[in-house]
Amino acid sequence: MVSSVYYFDYAAATPVDERVFAAMKPYFSEHFYNPSSPYAQAVEVRREYETAKQMLAHTIGATGDELVMTAGATESINLAIGGFSGHKITTAAEHASVLRVIEADGGTILPVNKHGQVTAGQVDSAIQEDTELVSVALANHEIGSIQPVREIAAMVATKRAERLSRGNRTPLVLHCDASQGFGLIDIHVGRLGVDLLTLNAAKIYGPKQVGALWIRPGIIITPRIVGGGQEAGLRSGTENVAGTIGFAEAARIAADKRAGETKRLGALRDTLERTLTSRFSTAILSGHPRHRLANFCHISFPGIDAERLVFILEMDNVLVATGSACAANSGTRSSVLTAIGLADDVADGSIRLTLGRGTTDASVAAATERIIAAVEREATRTGVQL
Amino acid sequence: MVSSVYYFDYAAATPVDERVFAAMKPYFSEHFYNPSSPYAQAVEVRREYETAKQMLAHTIGATGDELVMTAGATESINLAIGGFSGHKITTAAEHASVLRVIEADGGTILPVNKHGQVTAGQVDSAIQEDTELVSVALANHEIGSIQPVREIAAMVATKRAERLSRGNRTPLVLHCDASQGFGLIDIHVGRLGVDLLTLNAAKIYGPKQVGALWIRPGIIITPRIVGGGQEAGLRSGTENVAGTIGFAEAARIAADKRAGETKRLGALRDTLERTLTSRFSTAILSGHPRHRLANFCHISFPGIDAERLVFILEMDNVLVATGSACAANSGTRSSVLTAIGLADDVADGSIRLTLGRGTTDASVAAATERIIAAVEREATRTGVQL
Repeated sequence: MVSSVYYFDYAAATPVDERVFAAMKPYFSEHFYNPSSPYAQAVEVRREYETAKQMLAHTIGATGDELVMTAGATESINLAIGGFSGHKITTAAEHASVLRVIEADGGTILPVNKHGQVTAGQVDSAIQEDTELVSVALANHEIGSIQPVREIAAMVATKRAERLSRGNRTPLVLHCDASQGFGLIDIHVGRLGVDLLTLNAAKIYGPKQVGALWIRPGIIITPRIVGGGQEAGLRSGTENVAGTIGFAEAARIAADKRAGETKRLGALRDTLERTLTSRFSTAILSGHPRHRLANFCHISFPGIDAERLVFILEMDNVLVATGSACAANSGTRSSVLTAIGLADDVADGSIRLTLGRGTTDASVAAATERIIAAVEREATRTGVQL
Repeated sequence: MVSSVYYFDYAAATPVDERVFAAMKPYFSEHFYNPSSPYAQAVEVRREYETAKQMLAHTIGATGDELVMTAGATESINLAIGGFSGHKITTAAEHASVLRVIEADGGTILPVNKHGQVTAGQVDSAIQEDTELVSVALANHEIGSIQPVREIAAMVATKRAERLSRGNRTPLVLHCDASQGFGLIDIHVGRLGVDLLTLNAAKIYGPKQVGALWIRPGIIITPRIVGGGQEAGLRSGTENVAGTIGFAEAARIAADKRAGETKRLGALRDTLERTLTSRFSTAILSGHPRHRLANFCHISFPGIDAERLVFILEMDNVLVATGSACAANSGTRSSVLTAIGLADDVADGSIRLTLGRGTTDASVAAATERIIAAVEREATRTGVQL
């Protein structure tokens, strides 16, 4: 199925890499033991589980015991943000899961610039005496813009020290949702300076419903799912052995391919964008021109109905997204596009193409040609000037 | 590995059935699309996901839209119980995940009889004007006793109606953790009369980290994981398509095999217990003699160190549990055995054998012989009279 279509929605879902699947396979029916059981076969499964966590942690410069395995980025985000009380801060361009948790607590939602970014100064100004948590994505899930996380982290650290020196012992931490960035951005938690980091296997050719939350040692968070006390009491339930082993393998492969894929996909994406904007002078690219994920292309054709475009392209075997999958799910206009100030008719004419390992020169050429034909056809049909 | 050992710990973990694995396999790398994406391939994945939920729901006499898919029984339990505020009631023999959530809210923990059971009358007496939830397992995870859930459900319904007639509109619901019972007990939510039911794929030869919570229509619960709004807003995060399809297939197979396996395993278990108690007159069986899961054998050898026994049996290729996996994890004495009033030296001499699809006459004979030899050896070594 994948081979007969041109798939440009790698930000929504990635196929599980065959090596990842091979690594997971023995843990379904053969090494199926409960890692908490006492006999050698189960102890061996626990050892392999812990080794996988260690390998996964190494790819971000951390250790296995600093990771809490979860059922995906949404759970990690809920655990991270919900693990704190007090005032919280995030940006208007965040994923729904971040916004919903912070809104529930009545936090501050910072406006973003036209690329969907905030500055460290903006965050600084929003921090109150009772602020406990700031949450900023590494890269935006719709337009790919990369946030200045390192600068924000340095500012938060300074603020925390300053607050402590005044005797205010309220915790102040920075959570970073790296779901979209992990595949193509080399993350080292020490250098990045964050306190909590959300990772997602499903976006890096690993299994769905597998995620992790990295927690800087010394940070105390309240668990969201309690019971048997697994994951150091922070997330109970029998461990996802197969999923974690698959995630570690996916992260290893991603690290191997990162530099090459970033260069390769960036060049393909640039060609795609150049060709489309040359042909359509009214087309608008969103996302930061340079500080953006190499595989993201978000393009708007003002006056064109993107939902129809997606449908026409699908008939032509080119699969692209309108906004994000989650926004599509709820049937509402993307909050990210509103936040970056796109007019409604521009936002409604937006498609997102995200490239991945299966993307080639030929698939980009085919997609470009078919997008041009589809946009021209729709413009003719509706009388829109391009 | 499984074929060379005699596995008697099916309550801790079950191998994934090969048909279940075959059903899941296409959804990792081939039909990997995000069910929320708009194109036909993804819509098809969503349809298959919804069909799987429908099939799973049918096995308990429900419909697919009444199920919330989760990452396992622990999450289902946290969602069910944590979804209510007010006073809560459970029993001292429940799984750690039920106890931890209810204890956190300062609820009532009812004592159990020597078989680990409560009566509807006991629950009735504990219900206060502000009680919102009662949680009782279908079958105990350590000794297999079946609770009188139907009687408790009828009482709760009467109480609710009576309370409502007096103008008290506080919700009152019954949650049932059916993790252990689902494989061998035919569950029909309508006939059972519960309001919330926790199911677990990992105990019925399905994948780990896959669970469901059935919610009776009309019951409003607060979600624990928010974000993209999947599962009708009750559990956000990209759906576990492969896991859910695997769970549905596992439930279908379990339904097919239920009657036959209950009879077959019950006979094997009875032979095992008869042989062991004939040989050791001081041995004590726990769990209700009749109202008990057919595959559970919980036996205590007073004065014998069960941890050593498990180790010796493991050397002899017989895998059994001491207490439950979760209790073993935390290294403390099982709270179930304390709740049913077993003296410490009896509790510490307890092993749990749980039978399953791989159990045969030959494996029971081999296990029996090796358990007798191990107990005799330990008794001789320590001078314990049997």
